[in-house]
Amino acid sequence: MIVTVNRKAHFNAAHRLYNNEWSDDRNEYVFGKCANPHFHGHNYELIVSVTGEINPRTGFVMDMKLLKDLIKDKIEEEFDHKNLNIQVPEFKDLNPTVENMSVVIWNKLRSHIPKNLKLEITLYETPRNFVSYKG
Amino acid sequence: MIVTVNRKAHFNAAHRLYNNEWSDDRNEYVFGKCANPHFHGHNYELIVSVTGEINPRTGFVMDMKLLKDLIKDKIEEEFDHKNLNIQVPEFKDLNPTVENMSVVIWNKLRSHIPKNLKLEITLYETPRNFVSYKG
Amino acid sequence: MIVTVNRKAHFNAAHRLYNNEWSDDRNEYVFGKCANPHFHGHNYELIVSVTGEINPRTGFVMDMKLLKDLIKDKIEEEFDHKNLNIQVPEFKDLNPTVENMSVVIWNKLRSHIPKNLKLEITLYETPRNFVSYKG
Amino acid sequence: MIVTVNRKAHFNAAHRLYNNEWSDDRNEYVFGKCANPHFHGHNYELIVSVTGEINPRTGFVMDMKLLKDLIKDKIEEEFDHKNLNIQVPEFKDLNPTVENMSVVIWNKLRSHIPKNLKLEITLYETPRNFVSYKG
Amino acid sequence: MIVTVNRKAHFNAAHRLYNNEWSDDRNEYVFGKCANPHFHGHNYELIVSVTGEINPRTGFVMDMKLLKDLIKDKIEEEFDHKNLNIQVPEFKDLNPTVENMSVVIWNKLRSHIPKNLKLEITLYETPRNFVSYKG
Amino acid sequence: MIVTVNRKAHFNAAHRLYNNEWSDDRNEYVFGKCANPHFHGHNYELIVSVTGEINPRTGFVMDMKLLKDLIKDKIEEEFDHKNLNIQVPEFKDLNPTVENMSVVIWNKLRSHIPKNLKLEITLYETPRNFVSYKG
Repeated sequence: MIVTVNRKAHFNAAHRLYNNEWSDDRNEYVFGKCANPHFHGHNYELIVSVTGEINPRTGFVMDMKLLKDLIKDKIEEEFDHKNLNIQVPEFKDLNPTVENMSVVIWNKLRSHIPKNLKLEITLYETPRNFVSYKG
Repeated sequence: MIVTVNRKAHFNAAHRLYNNEWSDDRNEYVFGKCANPHFHGHNYELIVSVTGEINPRTGFVMDMKLLKDLIKDKIEEEFDHKNLNIQVPEFKDLNPTVENMSVVIWNKLRSHIPKNLKLEITLYETPRNFVSYKG
Repeated sequence: MIVTVNRKAHFNAAHRLYNNEWSDDRNEYVFGKCANPHFHGHNYELIVSVTGEINPRTGFVMDMKLLKDLIKDKIEEEFDHKNLNIQVPEFKDLNPTVENMSVVIWNKLRSHIPKNLKLEITLYETPRNFVSYKG
Repeated sequence: MIVTVNRKAHFNAAHRLYNNEWSDDRNEYVFGKCANPHFHGHNYELIVSVTGEINPRTGFVMDMKLLKDLIKDKIEEEFDHKNLNIQVPEFKDLNPTVENMSVVIWNKLRSHIPKNLKLEITLYETPRNFVSYKG
Repeated sequence: MIVTVNRKAHFNAAHRLYNNEWSDDRNEYVFGKCANPHFHGHNYELIVSVTGEINPRTGFVMDMKLLKDLIKDKIEEEFDHKNLNIQVPEFKDLNPTVENMSVVIWNKLRSHIPKNLKLEITLYETPRNFVSYKG
Repeated sequence: MIVTVNRKAHFNAAHRLYNNEWSDDRNEYVFGKCANPHFHGHNYELIVSVTGEINPRTGFVMDMKLLKDLIKDKIEEEFDHKNLNIQVPEFKDLNPTVENMSVVIWNKLRSHIPKNLKLEITLYETPRNFVSYKG
């Protein structure tokens, strides 16, 4: 009996879209107001999804309390109330689009989740724009 | 043209997490406050998803009205305003985690849905914790 | 400049509607399936609203972090994952309808909020039923 | 790194469910109050999902701004504040069920999205009824 | 102890904005695409709010089950899956804007709610446009 | 017949909480991680509420299309994808708390709304923190 369990979390951060190999003009041409050098920000809503067999003794795929604490420790503590471009090392040379953020979050969590479980990340940048990544 | 149709429903129930092969201490150690012997409860939000070909005469995969009535008859009537551990026979010897609940709901609906249609259950225990099961 | 600040919180609890001065039959007649002696439960969503002048030095009516911690300490710790009828003293002789719960929550918070600020409670029993109380 | 990007949009429209090869009696028997000859209507919520590789220079699977404009141009302009049965040519001989609408929307968008990207449509007719179609 | 209890309901309807004392041109000039002679429609979300003393025996301001049934009987049965302009007598000579609809709904419910209770209507035409009316 | 009409809008912005008459240490002591000198950000959700008589010819309190355009012109264009502390003149010497932002937005809109109509602002900084201001 393969079940997917999902846990929601959230963090608030500033960012700008910027390719540091391009001129400022080209960044503004491609990214528009998202390239604002003074930054803008979002309330990110994160769903972490873990898929696997139900453990017959606990009835859990994975203890949601542990998953909640893992998200808090590895993602919220690193990203919440931060400037992603300046203060999160993974985005030093990587444009913090919501697509790239979903990959970074997946990579940060993958090694902490048992290998027999599949992992998928869904990340809302706004209620109207969101992405998913499953490795 | 394969389409998935989804119908939302809801029920309110009490439960506790409890493995009746374990001591009370072990239950509390594993399940924490979810093992409270006096129970707690949730507003469960249920999405039933049915996938198949569109019937060219009706434009339906399955009549949503029939699906709504089926969910009401087989799930809401059985679970709503009930104590899952005490009053729902499927959980007499099965821990009513949201994972196990999704499997029980899938099993209760499967035989009432035409065999050529796939069935998936999504069940929200809270707006922050939810699962899906597709058999 | 009088502003209302609002903070959302949530807790999950079991309850039944029951007037202990009535017979079981009368309780079932009046409260229907909400009188189920084995209890049912809800995900309660709580909004605490505080109204007053903006402090010109902080820009706050009240520090939302303090309000969040106050709600956690006085309400969530007391109500979350509890059986309201059995485990919350205020409901020993008071029917835990969502109306009475809103009054109990208001009373528990009032003395901890500065006297010059007005207090209002909004409590969702389900996404379809909710109440507000302002003292 | 294959990521799915999703963009939400919405439109308001009138429709009725009607198979024009059937009698009015049969339409009412099958579709009930949805066959009302004077029409009824909905706020449709649309999610367009596009899956593909992240472009390493932009960090985008597809520029969400372009996707937003494409949805506006091809779907919202055609469907919003319209009577689907009378004013949208695709439904001249096709029953505007939410299933058929998802297929029509997919077909209208497919040729405007790069061929290497997969396309999926999710369409909410109400918050309780929704469908998805992936071609 | 004065408490407000709120109950949500919903109905789906077609309408057009139209002042029948004006020319078609003037209607289109003032109401734009909302004046489309073939109609458009919405999922209306309705909140009925009733304010009064808590009955000390029941713990209710008003039995939510009765309120739910009243809304179903007086509003949903009259408006759901209808064309407001053609099929709802109140709008024969009254433009079915969401403002006028809130007044009509208030008037239809007022006489069925005990006189000592205050009544307020909140009506969502879309998730972005809504009104309230308290008599 | 006095009705309140409400229109939702949204903008994404960066900010930090900061009193420029205080030391950095005091700012961090009072505002915690909200004082991060590199900024963080939010998806702000704005509700503008206007109260007055229904115009008997239009059925409107105020044309929602005009209200939508006014919010876009006066608020969204000024705040969206901006750094509030650096790029919005009103916050040059005013701490951009959500309380102060609601007052600034009210002041920016007040003169553009007919004098006989009351104005109220509701502003969500996150889905869990929001304020309202009515002048």
